[in-house]
Amino acid sequence: MNLTQPTCPEIERAIRNIPDFPKPGIQFKDITPLLADARLFSGSIDMLAEGFGPSDVDAVVGIDARGFIFAAAAAVKLNAGFVPIRKKGKLPFATYEQEYALEYGQGCVAVHVDALKPGSKVLLIDDLLATGGTAAAAAALMHKLEAKILQISFLIELKFLNGRDKLKNYPVKAIVSY
Amino acid sequence: MNLTQPTCPEIERAIRNIPDFPKPGIQFKDITPLLADARLFSGSIDMLAEGFGPSDVDAVVGIDARGFIFAAAAAVKLNAGFVPIRKKGKLPFATYEQEYALEYGQGCVAVHVDALKPGSKVLLIDDLLATGGTAAAAAALMHKLEAKILQISFLIELKFLNGRDKLKNYPVKAIVSY
Repeated sequence: MNLTQPTCPEIERAIRNIPDFPKPGIQFKDITPLLADARLFSGSIDMLAEGFGPSDVDAVVGIDARGFIFAAAAAVKLNAGFVPIRKKGKLPFATYEQEYALEYGQGCVAVHVDALKPGSKVLLIDDLLATGGTAAAAAALMHKLEAKILQISFLIELKFLNGRDKLKNYPVKAIVSY
Repeated sequence: MNLTQPTCPEIERAIRNIPDFPKPGIQFKDITPLLADARLFSGSIDMLAEGFGPSDVDAVVGIDARGFIFAAAAAVKLNAGFVPIRKKGKLPFATYEQEYALEYGQGCVAVHVDALKPGSKVLLIDDLLATGGTAAAAAALMHKLEAKILQISFLIELKFLNGRDKLKNYPVKAIVSY
């Protein structure tokens, strides 16, 4: 079955604003109405992976937990493998770890040391580019694995947070920007 | 590109045993080698969704976080929507909640109250059937949404924990059993 490709404004209209979540003053971008719509979900995956085919990409890398949704779906569409990046302590085997700054304190993400062969070509996908801290840490993990990042794709970019400044060494794509 | 379908023993061989994770005495089933293999990952999704086509399934429902990987991939393969079930407090909109017993204490999962229209036909997918507590709670959330569960599919079943006893009202499928 072929579904008509959605447009970016259609994707944007399916993202719901939730005021004061997770705390007062924050406008949360709720992607669940988009995910629940088969055509918009599938179309957003096509956009995130646009320009890449099965022979270009060895693996799609996704960041815990919403990034898993888009990256795993893109992996099957591209016939590529899927590699999870998780919060420190969640992965069971030996890991590389990378700390990054949060608003208050530090976060730490990890990837299995045998997740990718050196030289692997990867597409890194996450749902949201905010300050870019998590994505930059994920990119650093790819560097430790000696993988080549073809592109970092986001469904949503919050432009006013200047996250791209932390990702200058990589092609960056976002489907919807605020 | 068509990939040859893997067999269940091939899937099983790609699952790695990690002793004493997350705590001493537990053998953790590490699915990351399977996920990293494009053919095995795609094949496992086909097995989880086997027997269902795009006209059968309105949405694939996945449980945070590893369940997202399989359910989102199955959703795009079936041209269905994707619905996330998350730990309480993670979803930004109004939710139904369902508690369930853990070894020590209680867990609680949630789903958005508008995640599915009444009468929606859903496939519920998670990576692991252990005691069945989480899956039974997820099924109860589907009941609150008045959705119809066509099947609950797991990549792995730990048979000695008798998780199916909690899921007697639903067709249950597992690809690999221990």
